[in-house]
Amino acid sequence: MSDEVDSIRALTADIREFARERDWEKFHDPKSLLLALVGEVGELAELFQWVPADDAVAAFADPDRRQRAGEEVSDVLIYLLRLADVLDIDLPRAAHAKLVDSHRRFAADAVLGIAPKKE
Amino acid sequence: MSDEVDSIRALTADIREFARERDWEKFHDPKSLLLALVGEVGELAELFQWVPADDAVAAFADPDRRQRAGEEVSDVLIYLLRLADVLDIDLPRAAHAKLVDSHRRFAADAVLGIAPKKE
Amino acid sequence: MSDEVDSIRALTADIREFARERDWEKFHDPKSLLLALVGEVGELAELFQWVPADDAVAAFADPDRRQRAGEEVSDVLIYLLRLADVLDIDLPRAAHAKLVDSHRRFAADAVLGIAPKKE
Amino acid sequence: MSDEVDSIRALTADIREFARERDWEKFHDPKSLLLALVGEVGELAELFQWVPADDAVAAFADPDRRQRAGEEVSDVLIYLLRLADVLDIDLPRAAHAKLVDSHRRFAADAVLGIAPKKE
Repeated sequence: MSDEVDSIRALTADIREFARERDWEKFHDPKSLLLALVGEVGELAELFQWVPADDAVAAFADPDRRQRAGEEVSDVLIYLLRLADVLDIDLPRAAHAKLVDSHRRFAADAVLGIAPKKE
Repeated sequence: MSDEVDSIRALTADIREFARERDWEKFHDPKSLLLALVGEVGELAELFQWVPADDAVAAFADPDRRQRAGEEVSDVLIYLLRLADVLDIDLPRAAHAKLVDSHRRFAADAVLGIAPKKE
Repeated sequence: MSDEVDSIRALTADIREFARERDWEKFHDPKSLLLALVGEVGELAELFQWVPADDAVAAFADPDRRQRAGEEVSDVLIYLLRLADVLDIDLPRAAHAKLVDSHRRFAADAVLGIAPKKE
Repeated sequence: MSDEVDSIRALTADIREFARERDWEKFHDPKSLLLALVGEVGELAELFQWVPADDAVAAFADPDRRQRAGEEVSDVLIYLLRLADVLDIDLPRAAHAKLVDSHRRFAADAVLGIAPKKE
């Protein structure tokens, strides 16, 4: 495993190698990975479902709960990077391009304090 | 925006700054961010829902479809990093720890070619 | 289409017939239907994501927004009934059994006012 | 509990009474119910994630697996009906109207055997 814990590409390569070593690549078609991602999003949602919205940040300042949340967020991230990898998506570039595009679409002074509506 | 497109921390900081400049931090409580994440996962799922499982990788080798998939994966990533940030989760470390733990739980020779069951 | 709009079985039969008439049964394997369901859950989530939690019921008392929410809830329901149908699940009986089980597991006086934790 | 297991309205009333008896109505704002729904969709997704798409119907013909799937589909249904109820949505009518609308939008001979694209 890579020591560069902050690199999307290194983490992606580690996950790919993890799957390869276990001969799990055959399970990792995009639809299956998407369902696995949905499973992990569900586990994350369950942590928060009955917490009052205004208390959520404070409640998860508790070290055990933050640890649990961190594990579930990580599981979502791992399946997301794996999905991008099998689709041959250059995720660092794609995410950067998306942010650049958001800067263009949402000029700060035009949307100040206003939540954009999804059409 | 940072030039280090491959850094989880730099991307997280860029997203935080994007929200701050627009005074959108007030919308970014964990439950709202989770629902926004679910919205983006849904858009990603819609791209794949009727594609035959075995054709999915080939179908998304088409540049336009890969581009679309890359945008949706990026949207999921952006909300996931934002959620980790408001929860003060050190995601690079958490994800690395999760992978280390998976290496321990799933010894390669014990699970070779076998999809682990969710209990 | 059936006139018994309140019957789960009649609605399920209508949806089955709708798929059959269009030769869409070939698309309706369980994993594809699940991804379609996730897509509709995502659209529902997007309606609520930035609405303050305490205002959500009031905000959706507006006829247009309630109409929109009703459409998205219906889309989720339709894919859920279709999924149960292709899996040959007797959903009315299964849901009834689940409620009976919940009555047994959560005695009213033991959990009064307490949100049960997911393990 | 009602004996009319096939009635959406009766099931909705049973769920409402279940929540009322436990003083759980205070937890059932729309965003919390949506996250609970996402949690149950996640559990359903986990059952199918590594099953080959073509084997899914056959695999879940096994009585134990069908039972498990039935429980998870029921959990999704229960939260969906509860959500519709707190939003004061007349779900039987809304779902019927949605199907009528789909008949109009997707003429059988125009879409025969063709999966409609999400724009």
